[in-house]
Amino acid sequence: MSGSFSFRLVAHDGAARAGEIATTHGLVRTPAFMPVGTQATVKAMYPDQVRAAGADIVLANTYHLMLRPGAERIAALGGLHRFMNWPHAIITDSGGFQVMSLAPLRKIDDNGVTFRSHIDGATYELTPERATEIQILLGADIAMQLDECVRLPAPRDDIARAVALSLAWGERAKRAFEEAPSGRALFGIVQGGDDAELRCASARSVVGAGFHGYAIGGLAVGEPQDVMLRIIAEVEPLLPVGRPRYLMGVGTPDDLIEAVARGMDMFDCVLPTRNGRHALAFTRHGPINLRNARHADDPRPLDEASPCAAARTYARAYLHHLFKANEMLGAMLLTAVNLSYYLELMAGMRDAILQGRFAAFAAETREGWARGDIAPV
Amino acid sequence: MSGSFSFRLVAHDGAARAGEIATTHGLVRTPAFMPVGTQATVKAMYPDQVRAAGADIVLANTYHLMLRPGAERIAALGGLHRFMNWPHAIITDSGGFQVMSLAPLRKIDDNGVTFRSHIDGATYELTPERATEIQILLGADIAMQLDECVRLPAPRDDIARAVALSLAWGERAKRAFEEAPSGRALFGIVQGGDDAELRCASARSVVGAGFHGYAIGGLAVGEPQDVMLRIIAEVEPLLPVGRPRYLMGVGTPDDLIEAVARGMDMFDCVLPTRNGRHALAFTRHGPINLRNARHADDPRPLDEASPCAAARTYARAYLHHLFKANEMLGAMLLTAVNLSYYLELMAGMRDAILQGRFAAFAAETREGWARGDIAPV
Repeated sequence: MSGSFSFRLVAHDGAARAGEIATTHGLVRTPAFMPVGTQATVKAMYPDQVRAAGADIVLANTYHLMLRPGAERIAALGGLHRFMNWPHAIITDSGGFQVMSLAPLRKIDDNGVTFRSHIDGATYELTPERATEIQILLGADIAMQLDECVRLPAPRDDIARAVALSLAWGERAKRAFEEAPSGRALFGIVQGGDDAELRCASARSVVGAGFHGYAIGGLAVGEPQDVMLRIIAEVEPLLPVGRPRYLMGVGTPDDLIEAVARGMDMFDCVLPTRNGRHALAFTRHGPINLRNARHADDPRPLDEASPCAAARTYARAYLHHLFKANEMLGAMLLTAVNLSYYLELMAGMRDAILQGRFAAFAAETREGWARGDIAPV
Repeated sequence: MSGSFSFRLVAHDGAARAGEIATTHGLVRTPAFMPVGTQATVKAMYPDQVRAAGADIVLANTYHLMLRPGAERIAALGGLHRFMNWPHAIITDSGGFQVMSLAPLRKIDDNGVTFRSHIDGATYELTPERATEIQILLGADIAMQLDECVRLPAPRDDIARAVALSLAWGERAKRAFEEAPSGRALFGIVQGGDDAELRCASARSVVGAGFHGYAIGGLAVGEPQDVMLRIIAEVEPLLPVGRPRYLMGVGTPDDLIEAVARGMDMFDCVLPTRNGRHALAFTRHGPINLRNARHADDPRPLDEASPCAAARTYARAYLHHLFKANEMLGAMLLTAVNLSYYLELMAGMRDAILQGRFAAFAAETREGWARGDIAPV
């Protein structure tokens, strides 16, 4: 594996790390939150807003894009960066998780997964080779190996089988990735459910196989936070210091702080965008539900000290009205507020790590949440 | 009626007029297209985008806003300009048209209209006085009298009765408007359906009553374009040269050219915003339906020479994908494209009038539409 992809550890504070991932589409400052752009768009946001909010990288989805509009089509159109008008870094999910959660009639064997499209019922096959090929076609700066993510709770044997399968698939993905243009990266995925022993075995094997970076998959799927944090703490010492670590599908603002404290570097989650579309704002004062009637007459903005114009400018009463009236601008504004808050939180953690005051930053942030929303007028 | 509202005729070219309306929230250059912001938001647009596209004024709706969030509430929050973060001019519809088209169980008598809210079934009364009061509370720069708009075709007697009632209501609205702060304007509305004689009688009476401006209502409700243009041509000579003329609810780009050619100054219509949400783009090459499969592989933008970034930047294939995938960004981008096109068309007409080449501009514009969309690659 060659090319200009690289990771540089800039500083650490305890286990928390600040780093820089170099890609052919720019630097990714870590710890990094990666807004979710499943269908080649971060829902309700213009790409330049996503960038202005502080994102260095977005996540797109192999499963969704292979079905619609199709990977070959996006390649013929000049690749995903041009297609979605996002000239910065892009990471793509392998699609394994979405096949399991969205596709009807899926069938898994050693070779890969056969499934029907949730859009038109057509049959598709996703193998480690095809998942890799699709991500190369899309032009992802970072591709993920195809893996199998077991729904928890699950019998230990099922988890062990998925670990073995994911490892074999990882090795096949790596061979397939030799076709990738230089400068691209492939990450391996550690599985193992909530079983520390299987997790560690998985981590050792995946690291042994050798990837540009390592992800922990199959967490944040409904287990308690302490289970997730325990697994991270077990796996982290087995991951090489010089490679980025991606905790997939995580999480709440508190999850992000806890995971960064345990040495994780990269994150993605639908929470800021999905909750934004459902009237829930993330703020320095904790979550605020704009559907609540207490906002109906409140002239104050969500947070007048926010770097996000949407949070500073619009009255809570107006945001409340937009959601009551089903107006798209409500989703647009709160998505912007939430992504901005998430990215501000990541930037705050990074600065704190660089200054050696991560614990103090985490405590101050939690104090803000605990104080709760400012009282109504 | 006093204050800083004024209209200045800057130039004319045949019957086509270029003017300036001064309001306490800025100049409105005419001919003016007024984007529709029914529920205190131009759907799928940030207010600064609406402004950047060239809008001097937006239209909000008395009926919708009295029901939700309520006129007194908006007044307590500092008025509609602050509420919707639009510091420029605002005109408000009187609500008469929406009561007739949306509210169940409406009952009309000389005093006003009683109706049930389409939102929660609660009973409301809208009188000329209350409609005026609401618009004063909202802080509209231009308020409209309450009128009765008859659905066509209708018996002549019904149209005549509505003309008389609308005139009486106009006079009551005018008295109620004496409570308005200075600088605000009230427009009277000419009714009369498709009957030229009733239209002219209505125009003479409404002009006799005396308003800051005059609207022609009850057109663009399904009648053929030539009927609408004939009525405009009959009414126009009866309207004072020194007051703005507002053709309500109009129209297609071609309607706008024809109506400006006949001396109309102001327009509002849901077409650019509604069609934008339904994948139909207005362009120099005529309308383009982005749902059409011929766009699926087309890397070209809608119009690379457009002043609108959305029209220049995104591939047709991407816009097609966004609508197929039900992504909000599709509606956001095409609404921006359409409003930009409408406002560009108005600016083009205005410049042409100032240069005494309105007919040539109209012919060139129509040639562009007739040429049709550029051929697929």
